[in-house]
Amino acid sequence: MCFIKEDFLLTNETAKRLYHKYAADMPIIDYHCHINPQEIYEDKQFENITRIWLGGDHYKWRLIRSNGVSEDEITGSADDRIKFERFAQMLPRAIGNPMYHWTHLELKRYFGYDGILNGNTAGEVWDICNRRLAESDMTVRSIIKNSNVKLIGTTDDPIDSLEWHKKIAEENGCTAKVVPSFRPDKAVNIDKEGFVDYIKRLSVSADIEINSVDDVKTALTKRLEYFCGLGCCASDHGLDYVPFAIADENELEKIFVAAMNGEKICKFDADKYKTAILLHLGKEYSRLGVVMQIHYGAQRNTNTKMFNSLGPDTGFDCISTINCGEAITAFLNELAKADKLPKTVLYSLNPNDNELLDTILGCFQGTEVAGKIQHGSAWWFSDTKSGMEAQLKSLANLSLLGNFIGMLTDSRSFLSYTRHEYFRRILCNLIGEWVENGEYPDDETTLESLVKDICYNNAARFFGIE
Amino acid sequence: MCFIKEDFLLTNETAKRLYHKYAADMPIIDYHCHINPQEIYEDKQFENITRIWLGGDHYKWRLIRSNGVSEDEITGSADDRIKFERFAQMLPRAIGNPMYHWTHLELKRYFGYDGILNGNTAGEVWDICNRRLAESDMTVRSIIKNSNVKLIGTTDDPIDSLEWHKKIAEENGCTAKVVPSFRPDKAVNIDKEGFVDYIKRLSVSADIEINSVDDVKTALTKRLEYFCGLGCCASDHGLDYVPFAIADENELEKIFVAAMNGEKICKFDADKYKTAILLHLGKEYSRLGVVMQIHYGAQRNTNTKMFNSLGPDTGFDCISTINCGEAITAFLNELAKADKLPKTVLYSLNPNDNELLDTILGCFQGTEVAGKIQHGSAWWFSDTKSGMEAQLKSLANLSLLGNFIGMLTDSRSFLSYTRHEYFRRILCNLIGEWVENGEYPDDETTLESLVKDICYNNAARFFGIE
Amino acid sequence: MCFIKEDFLLTNETAKRLYHKYAADMPIIDYHCHINPQEIYEDKQFENITRIWLGGDHYKWRLIRSNGVSEDEITGSADDRIKFERFAQMLPRAIGNPMYHWTHLELKRYFGYDGILNGNTAGEVWDICNRRLAESDMTVRSIIKNSNVKLIGTTDDPIDSLEWHKKIAEENGCTAKVVPSFRPDKAVNIDKEGFVDYIKRLSVSADIEINSVDDVKTALTKRLEYFCGLGCCASDHGLDYVPFAIADENELEKIFVAAMNGEKICKFDADKYKTAILLHLGKEYSRLGVVMQIHYGAQRNTNTKMFNSLGPDTGFDCISTINCGEAITAFLNELAKADKLPKTVLYSLNPNDNELLDTILGCFQGTEVAGKIQHGSAWWFSDTKSGMEAQLKSLANLSLLGNFIGMLTDSRSFLSYTRHEYFRRILCNLIGEWVENGEYPDDETTLESLVKDICYNNAARFFGIE
Repeated sequence: MCFIKEDFLLTNETAKRLYHKYAADMPIIDYHCHINPQEIYEDKQFENITRIWLGGDHYKWRLIRSNGVSEDEITGSADDRIKFERFAQMLPRAIGNPMYHWTHLELKRYFGYDGILNGNTAGEVWDICNRRLAESDMTVRSIIKNSNVKLIGTTDDPIDSLEWHKKIAEENGCTAKVVPSFRPDKAVNIDKEGFVDYIKRLSVSADIEINSVDDVKTALTKRLEYFCGLGCCASDHGLDYVPFAIADENELEKIFVAAMNGEKICKFDADKYKTAILLHLGKEYSRLGVVMQIHYGAQRNTNTKMFNSLGPDTGFDCISTINCGEAITAFLNELAKADKLPKTVLYSLNPNDNELLDTILGCFQGTEVAGKIQHGSAWWFSDTKSGMEAQLKSLANLSLLGNFIGMLTDSRSFLSYTRHEYFRRILCNLIGEWVENGEYPDDETTLESLVKDICYNNAARFFGIE
Repeated sequence: MCFIKEDFLLTNETAKRLYHKYAADMPIIDYHCHINPQEIYEDKQFENITRIWLGGDHYKWRLIRSNGVSEDEITGSADDRIKFERFAQMLPRAIGNPMYHWTHLELKRYFGYDGILNGNTAGEVWDICNRRLAESDMTVRSIIKNSNVKLIGTTDDPIDSLEWHKKIAEENGCTAKVVPSFRPDKAVNIDKEGFVDYIKRLSVSADIEINSVDDVKTALTKRLEYFCGLGCCASDHGLDYVPFAIADENELEKIFVAAMNGEKICKFDADKYKTAILLHLGKEYSRLGVVMQIHYGAQRNTNTKMFNSLGPDTGFDCISTINCGEAITAFLNELAKADKLPKTVLYSLNPNDNELLDTILGCFQGTEVAGKIQHGSAWWFSDTKSGMEAQLKSLANLSLLGNFIGMLTDSRSFLSYTRHEYFRRILCNLIGEWVENGEYPDDETTLESLVKDICYNNAARFFGIE
Repeated sequence: MCFIKEDFLLTNETAKRLYHKYAADMPIIDYHCHINPQEIYEDKQFENITRIWLGGDHYKWRLIRSNGVSEDEITGSADDRIKFERFAQMLPRAIGNPMYHWTHLELKRYFGYDGILNGNTAGEVWDICNRRLAESDMTVRSIIKNSNVKLIGTTDDPIDSLEWHKKIAEENGCTAKVVPSFRPDKAVNIDKEGFVDYIKRLSVSADIEINSVDDVKTALTKRLEYFCGLGCCASDHGLDYVPFAIADENELEKIFVAAMNGEKICKFDADKYKTAILLHLGKEYSRLGVVMQIHYGAQRNTNTKMFNSLGPDTGFDCISTINCGEAITAFLNELAKADKLPKTVLYSLNPNDNELLDTILGCFQGTEVAGKIQHGSAWWFSDTKSGMEAQLKSLANLSLLGNFIGMLTDSRSFLSYTRHEYFRRILCNLIGEWVENGEYPDDETTLESLVKDICYNNAARFFGIE
């Protein structure tokens, strides 16, 4: 039985035409992901399917845990074959889950496997995948090339030396441009463990003595300029919620000094420091033409026992219910008042915020580029067929879908580029439905440009690529 | 290419039958809008399509801004033709946006234009519309008459003399009854700029010296009675969130005196004053048979720079995330305890509140009229195809859709009556789907009465018309 | 006209096959309901359709109130025939409401009535139903037997003697196992009226003097063990919101003593006491293998006037908007840290919490059973076709739908077992849609096991039945 058919997710004729004629062959700008540039430089090849699929993917771990499997057979010492079997046995229970689709899309596109993965076929699939992974065109760079990726935006700490980005650029052996993104969360999170140590490392990295909030700002600016020198076109902020609290310089200094002395900083004070740093960075992004990405709405590391055993980003995060709509507008307004609002992409982990964000966009647009303020594609837990449809429909209802910068993988895996295919099929299906339902004209020229723009051109314009 | 077809949005046979046989010809009760009664009295005729379409419509301005257009070519000094072109060029990007449908419905119904508006056709459409606007049956009153409007509820400040309403009534030249609605926001917003000045003007208008909260109440009552004398059947409150905080009279007086002395009133005190005034008005509405409309859930004037340049209601508002479900029930309960709960219509700008509101309705119904407590039709940013469907489905799930008072335009434009057509098509399509899906019986008599009631009869009963 | 057809709600061929072949005949585990065990023991027979339908069903009362009917003809002194007529007259207005479907399903399955209930047919239906209710196979036990119910989980106060459960078990005359569920809300709600009196009654029931928080815990444990002796496999908590506030023992004692002295307990102190009791119970549930059900998100008794006249649970509750996502994870985390997290089912009355809950599940799974942490089926106001679809889709997107424990009635009526049929049709329709849309393979064996598991097997495993 062939599961992923040519017209997978395309339920109407217009959708099929738009996808196959215009969307399928557009290159990919993967402007936000978490892949490791070292692995690109080294053109890594993976030993087996467990390593590339289950090595770091907490989406998969969560689902296997939900099937009652012990941690040992997920992230523990069990051997790779067993781990793969547990994944395969779980998969049929994941009916309606995007993992079911992603898995089979990847099996088809990268491994040529047409069938269904489950407990019975696990052995067969294990063999097929591992045989294929050993072939010479399954290195990281080959995968990137064969996936038609033009740009990869990694996620990097300001103190990162970016040595791998430099080497990739120098050697010029990757068909995609690989650029760093500036993610200064550790310099913002004054109330989290490790702040003092981090500021010291930032000081070294920026070669600036840091004794004040202003010094932090200067150091971050210096690092940001260094990133820009290596092609950085976007920043990224991961916030539990968007803070907004204004304080004068004296107060900020006191808070900073207290933190550096190891005192515990209360939420209220932390918000003041965070706001100050975020406003500084927002202005610098504006000055340097760097896009500001804000990801908010997560409760992270909710399970202390598992955090102590596995650390962060291991599948124990969930949606936050802290409301911050008023803080978001206050923050953007503060930058707009100073004429220093950068190009911005807003993402909330809570799908209930779709309409909130889409109404915020319209309050802060500008003339630098059509769609200066963007609502990012459905993120993390919302990165599902219905989640993407909800984001697209809300955006269309409340803003201009035609100016949307589209998909990103946000992934740690080199096999995730099929998520762009997944998105494009969903996009074309939605547009096709509107057309066939008489809600938008069947005007080929306009439809072609809408599809190509959302798949590629808008992002290229927005991030200033070529 | 003809875009708006006879069966636009009607995707099943039952829907087509219901719409064309029962819904299309029902008269319109536009019980809540923002049109200017002076323009009705003067039977205004518009110079060109930019003036009638883009003169005050911040929905359109937001979309054009989202396309990267400069303010000068939206609300500024650019000439009308350029402004229209910018709108037309933006429109194809608005795929999935209700503006796309509203625009083409208005072009078809009022201007006989069957095609698609975009950058290429802007010139042609400009000419067609302006030629038509110059014809004698395109005055404001003619549009109202030809749109089969029976009642128009404008939105008016308590201090308004209502001279234009009086003149319209005296002259009897408008086929629709034009009645004022009582919107006392400025007397409620003790914490907003202009309060002191407003209270002075209210004092003059009501011919009552105002030195206390009781005086404010008396003045408002006097003005409300004046409004009722001119046919007022509804009030309207625009609240950021619904407040509820009870205070004794002494405390209220102190807060009021402080405000009148120009002191800044904190949120907590403001809530107390607001609650007291709202409760007073609620009781008076009950006494006088006036419907209480409550619109809440907006962040207004989020962009200070643009507010300073353009003022309020220019497209810089968005959804609020302040939760007030508990305050809403406490407020309604307080009125119900006193047996003074008026007929009420609740609207939230946040679509996430649909189910909240629809469960609140059932807690406070009464015997004055079937459906005494109503959930208003999808408002402002939710006034979209999917927003209306969500409101209708939530209302149907949790209350009696058959008693719904239906659509209103909430518009500043005389060409918006086609939004009733839009609503009716969506309503009939939904009902038709249920019927064809076997979820409701195909019983013509009942379906006819449901459709006609929701389109017209329920509102007529609810507002006591005829 | 026959309204409930064989393929009611089944809109595709796969759905029809799955429902009729696999779902329809599965037995029912009604693990959470509010029926009266005494009526099972006494094998009660109802006098007329008003008594069995309108005697205690506040869902119906709310809808009749929404039609403008006076309380006298709903819960008051009007005669049963009039009350039935008011219900019947309202019903056609309830288009799109689950009540419309539930009513007609019950009329068809229990009374063999194929037609439509409305004002015109009220007399006919009254006669048919009452004739049928007088027949010998319409006693409570016969209804249970004919509905293929294997287990009934009632809802019981810890101080309940459970005499009727004992008698039912001893006599062995009911084909379903009838087990108590432990619902200790009154011991938790330290800030609600009646707490002092309740603690005294708990003291008597547990035969333990209660002078401290520890004594409360001991008493509850003793009663819980008693419940377990009678087959109890689940607890239930009805919370306005999930509290989380940690306090030391001294502080807790002071709060408890204050409450026992009749002092008013503030929200902050109440949260501390509640958290302590809930954590204690969570650990005991874990020790005893009892499932912890948490229902939260309701505003109860919002209409004081009606509460004073009719008491609680009479149709004056609505959704709460208090956010508690952070408290839920903190609570579960506290139990997980101690390795004492029981099997858990989370329910929120606010449908906006679907995704929140479904992401929380994945943070706390375990190896005791596949799907240890569950998101309960769409509850109360969400117990609608679209509410169930939303819950199922969110669960599928974010967890493993295949491990879902499925439907419960949560009902006070013996005629509600058709809600399992309603759920199963909706489930099969959704799965059928996915299959026919190419989103899940058309693999009969897997589909059969998914359907049977969600209808029955998962709940049997989860609650440890047989």
